Amino acid sequence: MNHLWQEIRHNPILWLLALVPFVFAAKMTSPEAHTLLFLLAVLAIIPLATLLSHATESVAAKTGDAVGGLLNATLGNLTELIIALAALRLGQFTLVKASVAGAIVANTLFMLGASFLLGGLKYHIQDYNRVNARLQTSLLFLATVALIIPSAVASADYEVPSEFMQKLSVGLSVVLIIVYGLGLVFSLKSHSELFGSTEEASQEQPWPLNVALVTLAGVTVLVALVSEIFVESVQEAAVTFGMTAAFVGFIVVALVGGAAEMASAFSGARKNRLDLSVGIALGSAAQIALFVAPVLVLLSYVIGPSPMDLQFWPGAVVMVLIATMTATIVTNGGHSTWFVGVLMLMVYLILAMTLYLLPPGGQ
Amino acid sequence: MNHLWQEIRHNPILWLLALVPFVFAAKMTSPEAHTLLFLLAVLAIIPLATLLSHATESVAAKTGDAVGGLLNATLGNLTELIIALAALRLGQFTLVKASVAGAIVANTLFMLGASFLLGGLKYHIQDYNRVNARLQTSLLFLATVALIIPSAVASADYEVPSEFMQKLSVGLSVVLIIVYGLGLVFSLKSHSELFGSTEEASQEQPWPLNVALVTLAGVTVLVALVSEIFVESVQEAAVTFGMTAAFVGFIVVALVGGAAEMASAFSGARKNRLDLSVGIALGSAAQIALFVAPVLVLLSYVIGPSPMDLQFWPGAVVMVLIATMTATIVTNGGHSTWFVGVLMLMVYLILAMTLYLLPPGGQ
Amino acid sequence: MNHLWQEIRHNPILWLLALVPFVFAAKMTSPEAHTLLFLLAVLAIIPLATLLSHATESVAAKTGDAVGGLLNATLGNLTELIIALAALRLGQFTLVKASVAGAIVANTLFMLGASFLLGGLKYHIQDYNRVNARLQTSLLFLATVALIIPSAVASADYEVPSEFMQKLSVGLSVVLIIVYGLGLVFSLKSHSELFGSTEEASQEQPWPLNVALVTLAGVTVLVALVSEIFVESVQEAAVTFGMTAAFVGFIVVALVGGAAEMASAFSGARKNRLDLSVGIALGSAAQIALFVAPVLVLLSYVIGPSPMDLQFWPGAVVMVLIATMTATIVTNGGHSTWFVGVLMLMVYLILAMTLYLLPPGGQ
Repeated sequence: MNHLWQEIRHNPILWLLALVPFVFAAKMTSPEAHTLLFLLAVLAIIPLATLLSHATESVAAKTGDAVGGLLNATLGNLTELIIALAALRLGQFTLVKASVAGAIVANTLFMLGASFLLGGLKYHIQDYNRVNARLQTSLLFLATVALIIPSAVASADYEVPSEFMQKLSVGLSVVLIIVYGLGLVFSLKSHSELFGSTEEASQEQPWPLNVALVTLAGVTVLVALVSEIFVESVQEAAVTFGMTAAFVGFIVVALVGGAAEMASAFSGARKNRLDLSVGIALGSAAQIALFVAPVLVLLSYVIGPSPMDLQFWPGAVVMVLIATMTATIVTNGGHSTWFVGVLMLMVYLILAMTLYLLPPGGQ
Repeated sequence: MNHLWQEIRHNPILWLLALVPFVFAAKMTSPEAHTLLFLLAVLAIIPLATLLSHATESVAAKTGDAVGGLLNATLGNLTELIIALAALRLGQFTLVKASVAGAIVANTLFMLGASFLLGGLKYHIQDYNRVNARLQTSLLFLATVALIIPSAVASADYEVPSEFMQKLSVGLSVVLIIVYGLGLVFSLKSHSELFGSTEEASQEQPWPLNVALVTLAGVTVLVALVSEIFVESVQEAAVTFGMTAAFVGFIVVALVGGAAEMASAFSGARKNRLDLSVGIALGSAAQIALFVAPVLVLLSYVIGPSPMDLQFWPGAVVMVLIATMTATIVTNGGHSTWFVGVLMLMVYLILAMTLYLLPPGGQ
Repeated sequence: MNHLWQEIRHNPILWLLALVPFVFAAKMTSPEAHTLLFLLAVLAIIPLATLLSHATESVAAKTGDAVGGLLNATLGNLTELIIALAALRLGQFTLVKASVAGAIVANTLFMLGASFLLGGLKYHIQDYNRVNARLQTSLLFLATVALIIPSAVASADYEVPSEFMQKLSVGLSVVLIIVYGLGLVFSLKSHSELFGSTEEASQEQPWPLNVALVTLAGVTVLVALVSEIFVESVQEAAVTFGMTAAFVGFIVVALVGGAAEMASAFSGARKNRLDLSVGIALGSAAQIALFVAPVLVLLSYVIGPSPMDLQFWPGAVVMVLIATMTATIVTNGGHSTWFVGVLMLMVYLILAMTLYLLPPGGQ
């Protein structure tokens, strides 16, 4: 546990861990103080997500390339998954879907755009391996197709029976998970030489395996407990802050859930290791779209009050489509400058502004 | 006719020709056995389409590059055209449109995707001339615009008079045919050097001209007769198999009509001649979109019970758009691996699955 | 004024200036002769726009690169801005929006397509600096996102309050203007070396500064007066010619407003200076989308009878999206042939034909 302690000492973000007990204390003493609970939960999730991310990477580093890549690829968005599971258990499907779509958009536009901007302010032109960017944007495109189809069919004039939508959603989920698995085989096994320079090494020293595993287990439980408080308080807190439900799910939850990865992506961009930033941002977006979202649909049959489908609010589908098209157009060349980052951030700002202004009942 | 006989002996697909008389016999004796008629017609069309394709290529090979290219470009999808004409004469516009849109999607996603997968399982990375791919995807894009516009206008809140839609459809059809013709001038005449390596040679020996012409004439008549039986039985058979009308038109008819070209495209991919596969798949899709579809609209004024317009079911427009965008993104680089094929096939699978699950009345 | 006189003698287009007094005379004597007024106004705006364009370039040439670039970038579409302002003052928001969307589409598809065609008929293959094309199409893409979002939200089933749409429109307008400004910093300052070969020199000798400034001031007043007559007469004249309101705003006004720039773009293409044509066409489209349109929204709070929002007719949004996608796909390679020009012109023809046939009430 010395490693853990040492890391906490050197990383100011982790000092926020001190807030974790206060979340539970506040929940006990004043369960109706939604705004306080919301703020405490947000601040507590950020350091926990950072620990989770580091523990996953440490386990991955110890277990060799294939298993390690697989671990990173499945647990890399553990925070997002746990938050969504908490909302799923409470039957808050709108929040689950908004947070899934919001995480795809936040990773694609905000995380990548801010990386390009931060890197571009320091370096005139930055290059990165566009093969990986293309694989990830292709995966995102496939997932976008899977999201468009149910909405496109449902928007026709006749009433779509919910039985059809559920069967279709299960089918789409299975397809997405299979493609995600084949994508891992492609990038880690059969054509790994094309993805060579991505060098997704963690910046810090990996922990010993036992420390990493204990941290992984313990922190997962903590994130699960805090997420539950977060999900319960977020809607009420939104009203206090004058934010719409759509804005909270799409923007706030997505940014909180991705805070740890953003720190890594931004730091990579400032060190001119843009392959790292692109890999984290687009890889994470693809993972949420092709792994987290379909797993949530399938798990809803087990833990949810009723099955969840893949039919999203048309506005969310349009936003995911815009994010995917932006990433496809922008990463086509494999170069980046500060202005490319500005463009992506502005697209994100437009989406966020729309959701912020959206009158209640809009989603 | 010795050539014909020799070919039949060496190509097991052609043994299915033996079923042709049985189609007509079954039609005489049991006109109500829709499922049997449907299955027999499907199995009989496949070898006939193969013969038709070989006869067209043989005539094309004998008549020199310009006329030959033109012949291939107009008769290359003769099977699809004949099937659609049979449906057009019976006034089954929904089936005509579904089979046209389905053929574009099947050629773009299934034929090209399966070629990439089959080739990629044998070769690590395959290259092809992307100039031709770009021309064909640009043509497809133009056709997609022509399909989107009527639906986009019609989806506005006010009622669009059918007179407007018919005038617009005739205008669009003329534009598409003109662009298709100019595209032939561009690729066969003015800038043919850019399309050099496409080497669209038929794999077998061409037949003598008289054999080819007689085969072309005779088989066209047979395909026309069998297609009529196929179109009459397909809807009833669909009910028996539990398939929706949308699925039959979009998937079954398209795959049956394109069987012969698929055999050529797949065989090209296995021989590392991917230019051949890309040329057949995308060239055929472009031909259907810019030549077959508009010709059907114009012919509907002559042979149909009433004029057919170019307004497609919105879901079909979305699917054609998805297919065109997938082809544009995927063929941008001019390289292919097995995973690219998987991605395209999965997009096709998503569309097929949606249509299969679609409740009746969905189209 | 000798310079001015000399130019008029050598440029036959400017001989149309003789019609300017007749416009005002006709307005006085027969204010109800809408068709005559419309035709006179169109013919008078074309030479005035040419003078305006030359005066702006002359001022820009005298004031050095940074200020000159800025001037060109803000006053380059002065004619379009003045026409739109005249319509804005009269509260004709539909005409304003149609002319803005129409100008984007006309510059992107017609001006660029005709340049490619005219150049391609003379030269086998033409190359141009695709960095600038990419910047402009990226800016157009951002503007398209800003146009899609309000319509996408408004097309949902619930009623969107106009207050929301106005707040959103102001926010979007501010974002677009900021991005436009940062784009100028990027292309003129921080990364100007990437845009080197664009050589946007005017073909003729620049005028002395005092001649240019006086011309700029005088002609601006004249354009404003003639535009008012044009806007007042255009709708009535449209009825006479059997044109729909949508066609007039989208096609006629856009082509009249852009006549001067088209002359420069086409002349550049015939001289194999395609960088000039691409710069004018796409640069002008981006300027209208990211500068003229948002300025009009903000100015509507000052000079309009009521505030104008950024919510466009869905058909117009689809057309702008099609134009942006066409430009993105086509300029990806940095090469051009006559057939690329044909494709773009045909896309424009499809849009124009649809608007021409659209029954009244369609917009």
